[in-house]
Amino acid sequence: MHTDVTIIDVAPRDGLQNEPEILSVAAKADLVRRLAAAGLPWVEIGSFVSPRQVPQMAGTADLAASLAASPPTALTCLVPNMRGYELAAAAGLRHMRLVLAASEALNRANFKRSVAESLADFAQIAARARAEGVAFGVAIGASFGCPFEGHVPPERVLAIARGLAALGADEVILADTTGMGAPTQVAELCRAALGLLGGGPALTLHFHNTRNTGYANAFAAWQAGVRRFDASLGGIGGCPFAPRAVGNIATEDLVHMLNGMGVRSGIDLPALLEASRWLSATMGKTLPALVGRAEPVYDRVMRDL
Amino acid sequence: MHTDVTIIDVAPRDGLQNEPEILSVAAKADLVRRLAAAGLPWVEIGSFVSPRQVPQMAGTADLAASLAASPPTALTCLVPNMRGYELAAAAGLRHMRLVLAASEALNRANFKRSVAESLADFAQIAARARAEGVAFGVAIGASFGCPFEGHVPPERVLAIARGLAALGADEVILADTTGMGAPTQVAELCRAALGLLGGGPALTLHFHNTRNTGYANAFAAWQAGVRRFDASLGGIGGCPFAPRAVGNIATEDLVHMLNGMGVRSGIDLPALLEASRWLSATMGKTLPALVGRAEPVYDRVMRDL
Repeated sequence: MHTDVTIIDVAPRDGLQNEPEILSVAAKADLVRRLAAAGLPWVEIGSFVSPRQVPQMAGTADLAASLAASPPTALTCLVPNMRGYELAAAAGLRHMRLVLAASEALNRANFKRSVAESLADFAQIAARARAEGVAFGVAIGASFGCPFEGHVPPERVLAIARGLAALGADEVILADTTGMGAPTQVAELCRAALGLLGGGPALTLHFHNTRNTGYANAFAAWQAGVRRFDASLGGIGGCPFAPRAVGNIATEDLVHMLNGMGVRSGIDLPALLEASRWLSATMGKTLPALVGRAEPVYDRVMRDL
Repeated sequence: MHTDVTIIDVAPRDGLQNEPEILSVAAKADLVRRLAAAGLPWVEIGSFVSPRQVPQMAGTADLAASLAASPPTALTCLVPNMRGYELAAAAGLRHMRLVLAASEALNRANFKRSVAESLADFAQIAARARAEGVAFGVAIGASFGCPFEGHVPPERVLAIARGLAALGADEVILADTTGMGAPTQVAELCRAALGLLGGGPALTLHFHNTRNTGYANAFAAWQAGVRRFDASLGGIGGCPFAPRAVGNIATEDLVHMLNGMGVRSGIDLPALLEASRWLSATMGKTLPALVGRAEPVYDRVMRDL
């Protein structure tokens, strides 16, 4: 089936990593299979980080190994360093995502090194990946604003993207880590990044709906020509310390918006909503996504003019 | 101060009308004054409907009378018919909003008459308003989709708008009553409506965030040239029967998005967030707006890449 956009569901990684509930490896495998069954062309299944630091991500190697033998859809994962690369490769994954931040402050806070040091590390991983035929993307966190530094100059993001293209990255992900971007700003940076990357690395946009701008930003990115988006089933991924915070843009709400625009993602919305109901039941709470909540009140809204 | 857009806060009307909590007249007056103090140029203070039908709107005449003597900002209200017009005028209001639906099914369900009958009623009210120097707007509900009929042809909305311009309406409000619009659809209808209305009635867009498209739709309308938006403090107005449903787009989240775009609304965001915290405390619950929740977690999001 021809599709216009590619959606990568990051619920098993960016979603679950930031929720207080911890899912078993079996439940995570079930989640990935349900996403695949709904038509997700890509799923980011987890992160190869220390389970002491991020207990939600424990068992990612087992999860990867159980899925990689007969992958239900294309799989990727987050790897923080060479050790993560090795674990992911040993588990059979053939696509990985690295991550750094566009701001020095956030990169140091998260990764205990400068942006230049992160890029040097990535050059080593890139060489290894190339030699072993593993594809990789790199996410540039805080591309639209930093919780410590505030404004992040687009030139800094573009310079990093240029460096990643030179490393041979297959994908560059611009991430609005804490939901600080505005639609006009997103449009401008996306146009510049598409122009810079040309026929090189694919450009993926990763939005959080922290301040209710996530879907407007996705629309602005689509207008600018972006055709790959990260999203998270149910919109999970708020923050383990803030129970009411919302997380990534929700896959079902993004698909609903795209459907209304006549933009084909290849995803079956009813199947996706069913997967989201399952996830909500599994996590034992209402998830931030809205489309699944809206339908049943159709007949009760008559006064709502 | 020069502003680029005009925001009309409809929390006291469309917001409260659809919440189970009932605020006293004194609390509603406090709400209107707090909105005015934050810089809202317009507030829709209530609806002149039967308190038996909509108990949340009881006391609107008293509220209007208490405010109209020395209005803290420009005031409007919803009037369903000539009786409502008379009550609002007697309370001292000089701007009112009428409402009908673009779909016959929703108009009949809500107002027990055809669209043509609503327009005939409005002609009588318009004549009276003109004679008495009262300005009026008309909201076209279900302009982007109807919960009963589904698709609403844009031609039908535009034909109604043309009729309202002929009646001498000062404002035409296109309302996405149940949050069914998609951004590209919104852009198209807004461009057509602006072309049709020309220098006549002002065009206001009224979005609900029922399916998480509200802010993307507002952005699309702004791109199309729309400069007047309804919004509701805290994003209240979900649905009295669905406690977790979200309502109108939230004034503070809209202002935050516009600020990020460099678009001036003349509204003081910190003062607005303070008003929203007051409303949340007064209603005894967390409201759907997100900007006010996001700030305190800035220092806890470091892992959220």
